[in-house]
Amino acid sequence: MHPIIDRSRPVLFVIGLLLAILSLAEAVPAAADAMAGNNDWKAFAESSAMTLFIGVSLCLSTYARGIRLNLRQGFQLTVASWVVLSIFAALPLELSDAHLSLSDAVFEAVSGLTTTGSTVLVGLDNMPPGILIWRALLQWLGGIGIIAMAVILLPFLQIGGMQLFRMESSDQSEKIMPRSAHLIAAILGVYATLTLFAGLAYWEAGMTGFEATIHAMTTVSTGGYSTSDGSLGHFNSELIDWIAILFMIAASIPFVLYVRMLGRRHVPFWRDSQVRFFLSLLAAATLSLTFWLWLHNHQPLGHALTMAAFNVVSVVTTTGYATEDYGTWGAFAVMLLFLLTALGGCTGSTSGGLKAMRLQIAWAAIRDQMIRIVQPRRILVTNYNGRPLGAGVIGSVLILFLAFVTTVVVLALGLALTGLDPVTSISGALTAVANVGPGLGPVIGPAGNFAPLSDAAEWMMSGGMLMGRLEFLTVLVVFSPEFWLD
Amino acid sequence: MHPIIDRSRPVLFVIGLLLAILSLAEAVPAAADAMAGNNDWKAFAESSAMTLFIGVSLCLSTYARGIRLNLRQGFQLTVASWVVLSIFAALPLELSDAHLSLSDAVFEAVSGLTTTGSTVLVGLDNMPPGILIWRALLQWLGGIGIIAMAVILLPFLQIGGMQLFRMESSDQSEKIMPRSAHLIAAILGVYATLTLFAGLAYWEAGMTGFEATIHAMTTVSTGGYSTSDGSLGHFNSELIDWIAILFMIAASIPFVLYVRMLGRRHVPFWRDSQVRFFLSLLAAATLSLTFWLWLHNHQPLGHALTMAAFNVVSVVTTTGYATEDYGTWGAFAVMLLFLLTALGGCTGSTSGGLKAMRLQIAWAAIRDQMIRIVQPRRILVTNYNGRPLGAGVIGSVLILFLAFVTTVVVLALGLALTGLDPVTSISGALTAVANVGPGLGPVIGPAGNFAPLSDAAEWMMSGGMLMGRLEFLTVLVVFSPEFWLD
Repeated sequence: MHPIIDRSRPVLFVIGLLLAILSLAEAVPAAADAMAGNNDWKAFAESSAMTLFIGVSLCLSTYARGIRLNLRQGFQLTVASWVVLSIFAALPLELSDAHLSLSDAVFEAVSGLTTTGSTVLVGLDNMPPGILIWRALLQWLGGIGIIAMAVILLPFLQIGGMQLFRMESSDQSEKIMPRSAHLIAAILGVYATLTLFAGLAYWEAGMTGFEATIHAMTTVSTGGYSTSDGSLGHFNSELIDWIAILFMIAASIPFVLYVRMLGRRHVPFWRDSQVRFFLSLLAAATLSLTFWLWLHNHQPLGHALTMAAFNVVSVVTTTGYATEDYGTWGAFAVMLLFLLTALGGCTGSTSGGLKAMRLQIAWAAIRDQMIRIVQPRRILVTNYNGRPLGAGVIGSVLILFLAFVTTVVVLALGLALTGLDPVTSISGALTAVANVGPGLGPVIGPAGNFAPLSDAAEWMMSGGMLMGRLEFLTVLVVFSPEFWLD
Repeated sequence: MHPIIDRSRPVLFVIGLLLAILSLAEAVPAAADAMAGNNDWKAFAESSAMTLFIGVSLCLSTYARGIRLNLRQGFQLTVASWVVLSIFAALPLELSDAHLSLSDAVFEAVSGLTTTGSTVLVGLDNMPPGILIWRALLQWLGGIGIIAMAVILLPFLQIGGMQLFRMESSDQSEKIMPRSAHLIAAILGVYATLTLFAGLAYWEAGMTGFEATIHAMTTVSTGGYSTSDGSLGHFNSELIDWIAILFMIAASIPFVLYVRMLGRRHVPFWRDSQVRFFLSLLAAATLSLTFWLWLHNHQPLGHALTMAAFNVVSVVTTTGYATEDYGTWGAFAVMLLFLLTALGGCTGSTSGGLKAMRLQIAWAAIRDQMIRIVQPRRILVTNYNGRPLGAGVIGSVLILFLAFVTTVVVLALGLALTGLDPVTSISGALTAVANVGPGLGPVIGPAGNFAPLSDAAEWMMSGGMLMGRLEFLTVLVVFSPEFWLD
């Protein structure tokens, strides 16, 4: 075996395992299409067989007792697993009767696994069930993958201040869950339970069982794929809107908190400063938008509140469901929702974007810098959630902001090179990198679709979605020469 | 005397002095209008008298031997001087026959003193000479004020990494110029000489003496006010374009370097990493835009190069001259020029924006963070221009980026609240905060004008221009409660 491959044994083993899981998931749409008498079942069955074969071969040829990853392998696994799984997930979309081009299929798969939710498919309402199930499953699996990555890998890789959670898991969670496998199992339980509750609620509110299942999976993963081109607006029900609001918020809270809540007997939610900040931010943005819709657009107050809450929560949690085209709500509403696109939910949840914790740390850093400027002799330790932050954590958060802005700028320039107008380029870059879903403007806005984009634009946006999901530096590190030096 | 006023004695004294200088400057447009038989001479004479009276009164009532500023007074002076001078500079514009409203006059004065160059005046080609001279003088005085602030005050205030230049002045420049008064006098000499050369060059290239003088003052201050609504495009001369390019670049290089170059016998320009970076960035952006104009817009290569170089340099140096409406050059060109708006020239020059040094430090921080992630045990000191950077400098640069983005976002939201469309709001916020001049879109684009904006939008943009010019934290600090505690 080649030495590079040999050194990557455990990485290949885990990727093989993940491919095997993906192939099992493909059996679900295959079965659904077979029962519905739809021809696509073959596409899913073939892809499933091929993926299973490759996955199992990888596992068998790299198996060794006791998997341990070193730092380099941790990075390799993080980047390679998302890229490889996206490619295999695109396979059935290409082979199906929808006959997606390679770039379309990869875009749709990446958008699914990263829980972005931008789609190139038009005519969802009349799609066979297999494709709709597959897209929802990709988001659902992507969602749990994101939480697992945030809980197991990122703290270890010291990306974007996630090292904070390394301390946390060693001095707090160990009392509840001794090892990360147990923690992940508990999180998976919470995730499945939330999905079940969301599905039941949607069903009670009037969706069919199929629609309720799909939307439950894409809500709890904050992905935002739907069974209709009109997204949740198709159902035209304020009750469904509020169910979505509730579960989008629930899915944007650190899943570790649910596990702790179950392990102890009290509720530590309101003591978590990130959750408090996230909820306050949602409330402030919702209220501003409600007043704008009420006073400026003359909507009844109750309806304005529902519309505002739904769209603010959909954008900030990076779900990306739409009920109507907020592009027509006037300048302030458009700008507010555009700017909220970058923010994201809490760390350790399924949502994307910058994340509430990082906004808090950045704000604390600015505030303390101001105090330091005025009182240069004062010794000041920046705190977060009651614990002191080292310069390393603050630096890595600020650098993540820079990497975020730089990626958006480069991607926007690239999209403009393909001929897209500035509004589409900038909002498209932002929505991809923050893993939200809809952009602004007539093409990719909440009422639009990503189908008209060129192949080049789709490839670039697929890259942007992965960069955002993997928190930039993970990817940059793997492509740096230092990484491959011994 | 009230204790707060008493503690601010030296601040009030310097402001009085600056007002006296402003009043002397007002004599120039007064004389010009009187000679031209224009009624506005009275507006300038009255304002001059009023400003002189208040300035001299302030000086006399606060005079004390040996001015020394403590840290708090340094902040007070920085913020108060720009605000007070803007208000007095607006006076003749209000009293003149142009009859600007208060918000228009303050906007125009702030845009002048901050060397932004956005204008609310239409019909410049037929304006009396007084107003045109006054606008150019405001930019010229603002320019030297900015350099003085960057050389004397900011290093002391530790804003945005400028503390680097405190070290620099103690271990290097002292050998050339022992005290800052001497340094400022030398810089003023360089500034005046550059202005003279620029004026002579413009004159040789075909401008009238008056036009050449005005444009020399607004080029060397990277301000961008013109004698024509068509800006430099009015002259339709590639020679004039290239003269502007040359002097805009010259004005965006740290003025301390010119002084050093004169003091020693060799040229240290190319050894300064900031200058190298700034020139490389200009070259890269100009070449990309040239190729776009050549290949996509089918311009002849030579003309494409002139257009590209002129607009890239005008935007990056934050001058804001226009020759034609680049809004019509296609998506990539618009996006590139829009994104370049934020960058700015070198520190210690007249240009605004983030500045080349900060881009370099941010990039070095990202690069070193990546190495640290891969090799956690390696000890790595980030360098700039051959000197090690402390965590404090890096932190204060990253925080300045955050403050920049936050200010642009808040201002853009505010502008959208006044009913402006998203493109105008975002580009207007960015162009104000980076002190560039033109925005994007039909209203405030390179072919547009800021006259159609509402009073509220003008006040907000005036605030944004000052925030940008004063590097954000200076202003925030003065408004923080800690600042006023004893």
